[in-house]
Amino acid sequence: MSFEVFSLGTSGMMPLPGRFLTSALLRREGELFLFDCGEGTQVSLKLLNLRWKQINSIFISHMHADHVTGLPGLLMLSSQVDRTEPLYIYGPARLADYIESNRKILDMYINYPITVIPVNPGVIIDSEEYYVNCFALKHTKQCFGYSFVEKERPGEFNVEKAINRKVPKGPLWGKLQKGEDVINTEGEVVHPNEILGEKRKGRKFSYVTDTMYFPEISDYVRSSDILFCEAMFSNDLLEDAVSKKHMTASQAAMIARDGEVEKLCLQHYSPRYSDKELKLLLEEAKEVFPETILTRDRMSFEVANHDNP
Amino acid sequence: MSFEVFSLGTSGMMPLPGRFLTSALLRREGELFLFDCGEGTQVSLKLLNLRWKQINSIFISHMHADHVTGLPGLLMLSSQVDRTEPLYIYGPARLADYIESNRKILDMYINYPITVIPVNPGVIIDSEEYYVNCFALKHTKQCFGYSFVEKERPGEFNVEKAINRKVPKGPLWGKLQKGEDVINTEGEVVHPNEILGEKRKGRKFSYVTDTMYFPEISDYVRSSDILFCEAMFSNDLLEDAVSKKHMTASQAAMIARDGEVEKLCLQHYSPRYSDKELKLLLEEAKEVFPETILTRDRMSFEVANHDNP
Repeated sequence: MSFEVFSLGTSGMMPLPGRFLTSALLRREGELFLFDCGEGTQVSLKLLNLRWKQINSIFISHMHADHVTGLPGLLMLSSQVDRTEPLYIYGPARLADYIESNRKILDMYINYPITVIPVNPGVIIDSEEYYVNCFALKHTKQCFGYSFVEKERPGEFNVEKAINRKVPKGPLWGKLQKGEDVINTEGEVVHPNEILGEKRKGRKFSYVTDTMYFPEISDYVRSSDILFCEAMFSNDLLEDAVSKKHMTASQAAMIARDGEVEKLCLQHYSPRYSDKELKLLLEEAKEVFPETILTRDRMSFEVANHDNP
Repeated sequence: MSFEVFSLGTSGMMPLPGRFLTSALLRREGELFLFDCGEGTQVSLKLLNLRWKQINSIFISHMHADHVTGLPGLLMLSSQVDRTEPLYIYGPARLADYIESNRKILDMYINYPITVIPVNPGVIIDSEEYYVNCFALKHTKQCFGYSFVEKERPGEFNVEKAINRKVPKGPLWGKLQKGEDVINTEGEVVHPNEILGEKRKGRKFSYVTDTMYFPEISDYVRSSDILFCEAMFSNDLLEDAVSKKHMTASQAAMIARDGEVEKLCLQHYSPRYSDKELKLLLEEAKEVFPETILTRDRMSFEVANHDNP
């Protein structure tokens, strides 16, 4: 089952030539999940040939212009294409106002249902295969981070063990795989854990921007396979970061290290850094957490299934 | 005195890779005037090294997302740079609502005065050297076109004639140049038209999008040096153009021809045409009006002073 994260933009505060505003997209088995939507996000989607029609959920971190002003244009696309699937947009309470007032003033014709869902910290989506957790960040206004987490999958089915335990091939195997007890041909109860291997861990993607550093973020993003995290400033601007409630690249790396994530992808770079100068942010982060990537627009990161050896 | 028009984008409905949304900028002697502001307009400004700080007036054609959603991001730049000059934004009545509601919901900190001015057809700016005329277009919602018109400049001062008519060099020359009568050393009245050449015509830039074709547009844009005009469709989609209240490239060319403009710059192309396919629009327009340009993002057009021979 595919699990791929795309960076749609890496700039903070304003779009730059070559650096659209910070936004990410998770594609999991044909379902698309968008995180933030700034000016230019829809252009990145098009460049990556990702079809916005397939986006069923959008998660907004906070209500600053650089994280939401791409929404009206994206929603307006609806009048151009054929879409019937509903769209769910999650974010701070004011998001509904924003969408409603823009929709009204701009006379936006939208031919499918949109549901805006105000979030609070906790699980905001809970489906059979995954859940999405939302957590409060600390910024100049209410701001949320998100983790998309796959639930554990049952362990691998061991055919030999099933035959040895006299469970005949057929519907009983399916029951075991779903975690149910069955009765074998000898009339004995067979538990799934006699036949299946260890449960297989799901995959996790976390998205964090904009916030000042605080250690609890590590807990929220713990064990993520991919963490997209703001890295606005270099170490020499730590004071600026604190006063503006943003983070340095090193602080992003501390979160990644303490949260024992697999890979840290930096994002939301200050426009003060040229594309070349961003190397400094990478260097500083790598000193703390070597598995750091200097994310560029439209990079993508695939995570394979976690299978037990 | 410089007079230069830049295309900041040429796409209609949605920004594309390589084609930002339709927007134009006039630079006249250091003053910048922006026409429409869609997603990506600020990126084009940056690519052209045009400083948004120097924009003192923005003219909005109509309240559809593809013409205004770049505004919040542009206004937000204010919190990043030092600007004290006021900004005037002209457009349909709903523009004030749009700016006010976005400003409020997005907590936009703006450190200079913004004045939103609802327009009606007629002269909306009248300064010593130029005026701006606004005219109603015919679209699916209220929409305006704009002409920026330099006023006539006095004719060239003929030194020989002044000396022959016994007007001594000094303040009296200045008065003649300003169009005032003076008394010469013989006690005679000297009229400016005895000393000055013919009045010199000013320059004119017109901006037209989105509208269906109607012949009066030619009158509004008459004698423009540069006309930026929507050319959404090719001839075979004339019916679509009519029903959606847009124009074909040929219709844009009819306006240019009948309005006797100097140069027609096409814009607001339908996303259905690839960059290569746009050639068709140019060909169709040129059959009607040869002085047509297939405008691409960030092309610029300079107009020299009109001096009498």
